[in-house]
Amino acid sequence: MGRITKQQKKQTDQDETATVPLAAVDAWWRAANYLSVGQIYLLDDPLLEHPLTVDDTKPRLLGHWGTTPGLNFIWAHLNKQIVERDADVIYLAGPGHGGPGVVANAWLDGTYSELFHHIPMDAKGMGRLFRQFSFPGGIPSHAAPETPGSINEGGELGYSLVHAYGAVLDNPGLIAACVVGDGEAETATLATSWHLNKFVNPVTDGTVLPILHLNGYKIANPTILARIPQDELAALFTGYGYSPRFVEGGFDGEDPMAVHERFAAVLATALDDIAEIREAAAAASADGSEVARPAWPMIVMRTPKGWTGPKEVDGLPVENTWRAHQVPLAGLRDNPEHLRQLQEWMESYRPHELFDEQGRPAAALDPNRPKGDRRMSANPHANGGLLLKALDLPPLDDLAIDVSEGRGTIAEPTRVLGKWLRDVMVANPDDFRLFGPDEVASNRLDAVYEVTDKEWEGEVLPVDEHLAPRGRVIEMLSENLAQGLLEGYLLTGRHGLFTSYEAFIHVVDSMFNQYAKWLESSAEVEWRRPVSSFTYLLSSHVWRQDHNGFSHQDPGFLDHVVNKQASVVRVYLPPDANTLLVTAEHCFATRDYVNVIVAGKQPGPTLLSLEEARAHGARGLSVWEWAGTEVEGLEPDVVIAAAGDIPTLEAMAAVQILAKEIPDLRIRFVNVVDLMRLQDEREHPHGLSSDAFDEVFTKDKPVIFAFHGYPSLIHRLTYRRTNHANIHVRGFKERGTTTTPFDMLMLNDLDRFRLVMDVVQRVPSLRVAYAGFSQRMEDERIAHRAYTRAHGEDPADVAGVAGLPFALELPDQPTEDDTGADNAPH
Amino acid sequence: MGRITKQQKKQTDQDETATVPLAAVDAWWRAANYLSVGQIYLLDDPLLEHPLTVDDTKPRLLGHWGTTPGLNFIWAHLNKQIVERDADVIYLAGPGHGGPGVVANAWLDGTYSELFHHIPMDAKGMGRLFRQFSFPGGIPSHAAPETPGSINEGGELGYSLVHAYGAVLDNPGLIAACVVGDGEAETATLATSWHLNKFVNPVTDGTVLPILHLNGYKIANPTILARIPQDELAALFTGYGYSPRFVEGGFDGEDPMAVHERFAAVLATALDDIAEIREAAAAASADGSEVARPAWPMIVMRTPKGWTGPKEVDGLPVENTWRAHQVPLAGLRDNPEHLRQLQEWMESYRPHELFDEQGRPAAALDPNRPKGDRRMSANPHANGGLLLKALDLPPLDDLAIDVSEGRGTIAEPTRVLGKWLRDVMVANPDDFRLFGPDEVASNRLDAVYEVTDKEWEGEVLPVDEHLAPRGRVIEMLSENLAQGLLEGYLLTGRHGLFTSYEAFIHVVDSMFNQYAKWLESSAEVEWRRPVSSFTYLLSSHVWRQDHNGFSHQDPGFLDHVVNKQASVVRVYLPPDANTLLVTAEHCFATRDYVNVIVAGKQPGPTLLSLEEARAHGARGLSVWEWAGTEVEGLEPDVVIAAAGDIPTLEAMAAVQILAKEIPDLRIRFVNVVDLMRLQDEREHPHGLSSDAFDEVFTKDKPVIFAFHGYPSLIHRLTYRRTNHANIHVRGFKERGTTTTPFDMLMLNDLDRFRLVMDVVQRVPSLRVAYAGFSQRMEDERIAHRAYTRAHGEDPADVAGVAGLPFALELPDQPTEDDTGADNAPH
Repeated sequence: MGRITKQQKKQTDQDETATVPLAAVDAWWRAANYLSVGQIYLLDDPLLEHPLTVDDTKPRLLGHWGTTPGLNFIWAHLNKQIVERDADVIYLAGPGHGGPGVVANAWLDGTYSELFHHIPMDAKGMGRLFRQFSFPGGIPSHAAPETPGSINEGGELGYSLVHAYGAVLDNPGLIAACVVGDGEAETATLATSWHLNKFVNPVTDGTVLPILHLNGYKIANPTILARIPQDELAALFTGYGYSPRFVEGGFDGEDPMAVHERFAAVLATALDDIAEIREAAAAASADGSEVARPAWPMIVMRTPKGWTGPKEVDGLPVENTWRAHQVPLAGLRDNPEHLRQLQEWMESYRPHELFDEQGRPAAALDPNRPKGDRRMSANPHANGGLLLKALDLPPLDDLAIDVSEGRGTIAEPTRVLGKWLRDVMVANPDDFRLFGPDEVASNRLDAVYEVTDKEWEGEVLPVDEHLAPRGRVIEMLSENLAQGLLEGYLLTGRHGLFTSYEAFIHVVDSMFNQYAKWLESSAEVEWRRPVSSFTYLLSSHVWRQDHNGFSHQDPGFLDHVVNKQASVVRVYLPPDANTLLVTAEHCFATRDYVNVIVAGKQPGPTLLSLEEARAHGARGLSVWEWAGTEVEGLEPDVVIAAAGDIPTLEAMAAVQILAKEIPDLRIRFVNVVDLMRLQDEREHPHGLSSDAFDEVFTKDKPVIFAFHGYPSLIHRLTYRRTNHANIHVRGFKERGTTTTPFDMLMLNDLDRFRLVMDVVQRVPSLRVAYAGFSQRMEDERIAHRAYTRAHGEDPADVAGVAGLPFALELPDQPTEDDTGADNAPH
Repeated sequence: MGRITKQQKKQTDQDETATVPLAAVDAWWRAANYLSVGQIYLLDDPLLEHPLTVDDTKPRLLGHWGTTPGLNFIWAHLNKQIVERDADVIYLAGPGHGGPGVVANAWLDGTYSELFHHIPMDAKGMGRLFRQFSFPGGIPSHAAPETPGSINEGGELGYSLVHAYGAVLDNPGLIAACVVGDGEAETATLATSWHLNKFVNPVTDGTVLPILHLNGYKIANPTILARIPQDELAALFTGYGYSPRFVEGGFDGEDPMAVHERFAAVLATALDDIAEIREAAAAASADGSEVARPAWPMIVMRTPKGWTGPKEVDGLPVENTWRAHQVPLAGLRDNPEHLRQLQEWMESYRPHELFDEQGRPAAALDPNRPKGDRRMSANPHANGGLLLKALDLPPLDDLAIDVSEGRGTIAEPTRVLGKWLRDVMVANPDDFRLFGPDEVASNRLDAVYEVTDKEWEGEVLPVDEHLAPRGRVIEMLSENLAQGLLEGYLLTGRHGLFTSYEAFIHVVDSMFNQYAKWLESSAEVEWRRPVSSFTYLLSSHVWRQDHNGFSHQDPGFLDHVVNKQASVVRVYLPPDANTLLVTAEHCFATRDYVNVIVAGKQPGPTLLSLEEARAHGARGLSVWEWAGTEVEGLEPDVVIAAAGDIPTLEAMAAVQILAKEIPDLRIRFVNVVDLMRLQDEREHPHGLSSDAFDEVFTKDKPVIFAFHGYPSLIHRLTYRRTNHANIHVRGFKERGTTTTPFDMLMLNDLDRFRLVMDVVQRVPSLRVAYAGFSQRMEDERIAHRAYTRAHGEDPADVAGVAGLPFALELPDQPTEDDTGADNAPH
């Protein structure tokens, strides 16, 4: 269903009843324009039954007109093609402030009234539709989660095209019609998104039809693409690998019907060409071969900004200038002439032809209205939760690292995870994907290549490995594109993972922001169904970027993430391979969250059995009796806590040193995998209750906390805790250089010796008695640094895993009741 | 000086002594390659005086070879052109991990030894050069601040081209040769950077010569641009507005001399064409006209990745594959064959021809070495502090808002600042620029257009305003480009300002990170001279984005910024127009910082006279006696503090309400303009001492803090303060929607009524006695919200500025000794 073949096309050509007359397209367009102007301006009298008065208009005019007529024009024409071809099309509005247009079309579709019962398809509904727009308690002026049919927020510009590409992956019947604004086309992400045509397969994926709208102007400037010659523009899109087609019209008062004719022809040809390309590819595929990367059609549409709006206001040109960007007519309260012009403008659409006396869309529009799910505002792909199937999650048991002979089996956590991702791909062959900026192998997830390849429609040479025109992995050197593709893929009801180097994930800070806001807003929209969570795997993290140097060392994404609402963000720092496995398993089963997992790729000891890891993951944080020196029934003298793989090992090493030197010191060892457990339960759904927190961290004992990221984050999360003043955090201090793993820890005072000195300093009974010991620790550090500088590597006793303390001299005390299931956050 | 004219070119053609033979270019290239391999592999025996042993090699092999021979090749050829033309050229190495190459060339130039005396130009120096590379205490594997001649960090990819464009602005004699890696070309920022050719003027700006290096592979994948047909590639760069030229060579064992010949010819032609374009433009300019936007040359160079390295290792192809990306030969300790191959590889460069017995570069290289400042590693543009002139800062007095008739004169702060920026441009006509993503006018800085225009080399239409081929403002809808241009402009010794909407500045989070790290590292590099600070002006901020809705509401950039070292970050929240003026004046005089200024553009009351604003700015935070209800000699009952323009007004309104209702309540009012004053002096150079802080905020009184951003930031900054537990912060709670200004405040509990309720709740003596009053406040809030929802605007008594409390019923008590100059941070 939904595939458009030439055969189908021919049928519709022959079937006169299915041809939509351009008059209906034009009526639709005029109706959508009328409704858009109404939303921007009117509080009342939606059908203009009386001469407009100031009281009929909004006190604050906050909408934007400029881009809207173009968006409506394209929507109207796509409707015609959908009706004629029974095409499966979603619509992405790239330009900012396109809200009135897409909402108008959704109301004309009938979808709006179906989803929002208080806004029926009549004059009352129209009045409410107008009133709610950019009004307190109403809807925003961009396409947004509140907008039926939208998977792209129009606030922060630049992501429409990458969202469109994410949507069509593994959706062979789908066409994502993506209106790219010529303003947004200047953004960094949009500029590189055009290259995504090298990553879609013409048989197994759907098709993106980009429509670059040369609207001419941004807020206060012309756009670059509107001011370069057409041959340059044609060369640019040919160079990006497309087959560009140009339509221009509506200037100097040209009759819109002429523009309709030209655009309809170009759009029909583009869709015919798409069908032909797909047919050829399908035929080749049936013969077991693949076609060369096709030059997919794209359309460049040049129309006046603010088309059909006031030509002139106060003697200055408005239509086709930057003055049409926002509200062409302002100051209605003080300017009766503007009020008159508004009335004239709205009447120019001949509303009596478009709406009946009850305010219902007139029959003239009907031929141009697709039915049911074919309506772009109702297309289920744009409310992906409707189509979502839970992932089939394969068992972890065979992949988990065995620690039955003793803790410490060496494993590379992400490599182990890679094997599970491989199994996930096998179990879910068409709705799970992995995205990354050239770092899937570097982050050691390459086991996935046992069962799939990297999608690549370009040339493949004999030396290449795992490149193929069909693959479940997409790698392009742009974090923005990996982020945007996964967003588009999730919002259309599928699952996936984005893996990146930790430091460079800040490239997508703003995209994360906007996606988190999308989820936060979606939660308030009743008809939006939950989608699979967005999960980041950040590896090649700060503590093992010693060799790459300062530019590669930044753990601050976590700080950024926790600014967003607690209802949508989750942060995990699994300390070993088995805990990483259970964390990923958990994250893939969640909905509507952003999960951030930080995990190492370097060989490290496996500390927990799979069962223990499950319990630890479910608890989120646990006391590890076996790693501490507590005595049952007695309060500890000090708590050593850790979050993050490397900090956990350093903290364990510190316990080991202390246990040798001060055997009767009672150390409680706490590991935190779910960072949000630290927060108060009133602030985050995963937060521990005050009592539970106090039970673990005590009410008054010193807590030395070894943390993966910037120390302030731990203070921030534990700010309301009883024992907060006693929590002393060591973490990244923004001290970086090109050095060795252990030297990086020393540089930031997160090494075992420093942690030991911290304990001596903070436990009052030790301060004086162990001053000499503390000095020895300091001497050790100096000696270590001198060795490192001389030899270029860490001394053997702290290097890599060799010096780590799990070759356990400490008693192993696995807790039996440590299932924690009833305590599990989600 | 430094302009290359055709005439000069002809002279050098005729002057045989200035022609550099290709043999010298090749010798230079081989020497640079030899030194690069040596850096990656060797600890000792730099001249291979004995057969290599394992002990001669580094224990950890952390360098990257793949991109290096290409970088060296281009450097060698640019040297030839510089010598022959006396050209003024800087070199930007875009590909990652190009460190060994650029360092090798700097050493061959002689610059390295001049700047680092412990690394002389002999065998001893060469040994140290090798050892320090990617070694603890040494230098990173990317071009970095430590690299002579570099203004571009090679760690996070994608910024080379925008840095190059920033560098050539207002540097008409300069050519920025920018090697763009085909990996980095996939990044978002790089993809849109090509369009910057529309913003450079051929007379008043210099020229960027992009050299796209089709090296073929990233870490684990081919690159897109290397795998599209050459006609597509040609179309792409034609479409971007360039005149592309192609050179390919070195494949299948081709003699490098043949490639030298081809590349030398293409490079010479490109430089000739640049000269010709500039000459024509200069001639037109002399006639008072401007040439049409030229199609500037760019070069596409396709050579094998890891060229001249091992062809095969362990039976697998390496040269010209992704396997050449990092170290082609690894595991030297366990593999004598690899060690042998390394020796063979290094000897293949015929080092005895390249270095004399003392290890000094041989005379064969001399013809290809430019002299003095013409050496690309020594070019002063790449150490911009050398060229920096302090800005001539015009007086503020005539622009400052007059409050002599009483506080509260209404002004739009950024509009007032715009007038000063105009004056700054007049006073500094060729080294100050303003960058923004289409928001200079929207942020109300448009007074600058009284004296300048927006630079625009595209078509200009009659309807356009302030567009011209020469202008001091550059606007393109990409925060990444505004950021990168200003970085390039500052690092070459000039001044500027980047203005953006607050929410979308997160788009450049990662670029900010990398620039802050650049400054942090530069501070450790003795020969790097201080550059002008990078100053952000964030307007259209979270509290006045009520109409644009949730996607436009995010104050989190401040949290991001304070993660970086205290030595480089400064954050200012001026509460009114006059304080904004003095803050900007201060920031423009600083060096080597990142200054972030958040200020509103909406009309608001001016609270301080210019003199008071100066004192307040110098103090960073002050008690405003006139805005509180303190009684001299008595401790206050409560402190109300505010940071940010809107929070300051709300806090003042709260004081006013309290003063009426509870006349004997002693309220201290504190305003914070320099946020880092809150931090402890041990953590930030601007931090207040503990005593000074306690004096202002008391040791034990409740503090109600109204903050512009996320509340956690205030807790974080005041974490070590005596009275920290009593600080109760109201700020943005990530609750946003499309609404009205006052409703936004209510939604986030930052409104005056909530602040009043907070005071009642926190001051023990009020809690019970004023419970009824508190309830009235709650009722007020409910009534306000109901009004807002009904009318679409705020009730008049809180809307805009009308309801604000500076129409002072409170006594105005200007402090006489409030100069604070000796207390001024910098």
